[in-house]
Amino acid sequence: MRKIKLLIEYDGTQYHGWQVQPHAPTLQEVIQEKIMVMTRHPVHLLASGRTDAGVHALGQVACFMTPTRIPVSGFRHGLNSLLPRDIRIRSAEETDPAFHPQYAAKRKTYLYRILNSEAPSAVYRNFSWHIPLSLDVPAMQEAAGTLIGAHDFSSFQGADADGMTTVREVFRAEWRGDKGKFLSFTIAANGFLKHMVRNIVGTLVDVGKGRTSGDEFRRILTARDRRLAGPTAPPQGLFLLEVTY
Amino acid sequence: MRKIKLLIEYDGTQYHGWQVQPHAPTLQEVIQEKIMVMTRHPVHLLASGRTDAGVHALGQVACFMTPTRIPVSGFRHGLNSLLPRDIRIRSAEETDPAFHPQYAAKRKTYLYRILNSEAPSAVYRNFSWHIPLSLDVPAMQEAAGTLIGAHDFSSFQGADADGMTTVREVFRAEWRGDKGKFLSFTIAANGFLKHMVRNIVGTLVDVGKGRTSGDEFRRILTARDRRLAGPTAPPQGLFLLEVTY
Repeated sequence: MRKIKLLIEYDGTQYHGWQVQPHAPTLQEVIQEKIMVMTRHPVHLLASGRTDAGVHALGQVACFMTPTRIPVSGFRHGLNSLLPRDIRIRSAEETDPAFHPQYAAKRKTYLYRILNSEAPSAVYRNFSWHIPLSLDVPAMQEAAGTLIGAHDFSSFQGADADGMTTVREVFRAEWRGDKGKFLSFTIAANGFLKHMVRNIVGTLVDVGKGRTSGDEFRRILTARDRRLAGPTAPPQGLFLLEVTY
Repeated sequence: MRKIKLLIEYDGTQYHGWQVQPHAPTLQEVIQEKIMVMTRHPVHLLASGRTDAGVHALGQVACFMTPTRIPVSGFRHGLNSLLPRDIRIRSAEETDPAFHPQYAAKRKTYLYRILNSEAPSAVYRNFSWHIPLSLDVPAMQEAAGTLIGAHDFSSFQGADADGMTTVREVFRAEWRGDKGKFLSFTIAANGFLKHMVRNIVGTLVDVGKGRTSGDEFRRILTARDRRLAGPTAPPQGLFLLEVTY
């Protein structure tokens, strides 16, 4: 048996997220199905983590076991010829059978993109959150700085998340004005709770609009109470950039 | 009668280009139809120029006449609520009834985007030309420099273009390496022949691959013979950025 590790890019617009669910196309299901066309045996594709419906990935990592002798390079070319064009295998390599793409992850990096312009965009509609109001980016950056370090992020956890520890360590949380009217938020941590990035972004946008002060943002973080945080930012601005092992 | 000038952004992926044609959805047709929902009279929407199937625009300009008293600001909001999300009206303003969006244009600027990476992209598949071979960008830039000024661009004209002069003046022709593996070509001129940008890009890519030398590129330009130029670059990398009056 070999374990194959895939680096996957996808446009999540047309999918109901990563995880298989009944009656809705998901990324895991579509990719598993194409792997099975190649291997002719059932496979279970395990990812570094789920992504929500509409969320994109430039560097999702997922693994499966196979007893076949298909050369590992064949999986990239073979799957790319079978998969729809909104899913691309960037690379395929053989990895240690004990490797677990979620538990072995040391660092995950997400990007959230905001289009901060009066008019909405046709070209970027599926790849950004359009906010027509002007935002105080320095205030958003200052508040984001309080996320750095190990914290209990319960305040930014999605409602129906499951147990386990809610402490995560954030290594980087940075707003950058891209060319034109795009704002990009890059956040790296040793792991993320359900909806954590989108809840953080929604709350930081409240800071940018002047609805929430920097002090209030800090209090929301330390309160460990989801009811205090701002709205969940919409999924289409979010990209899983990289998983580091 | 008032003349209304629209600034339009579109994702051209789902359309058979700008110009109305039977049995295929076009941008002109879809936008005209929604204007008619508002004005309740037939309108003819005249653009700064056609764009091909799959080509995008961040700043297309188009005009129509109307006897209605709808406030001009109402067209932006009204049309954006009627139009599909891959077409957005960036602004609407009243203009001189004599204004002609094509003949009054002093300068048009296009951007062509190449994804120069080994693996193809899922997220950018409809917004770039994927070229896995490594490209000699300095050679492409040097060749692009010979385009500057007034030239007869017949060598880069699409096969079934119609008469008129084939002389155009190019003000700017510049390759830039964007972050990551994107290459962007910006070209500005007082006007463009049919397929001119895509044929220039296809031929410059041949220069980047070492198939065509800088001297040969110059000879292709001066030969005024379409058969000498390289392939037509695919439409999805092309964006009409701006029309200047």
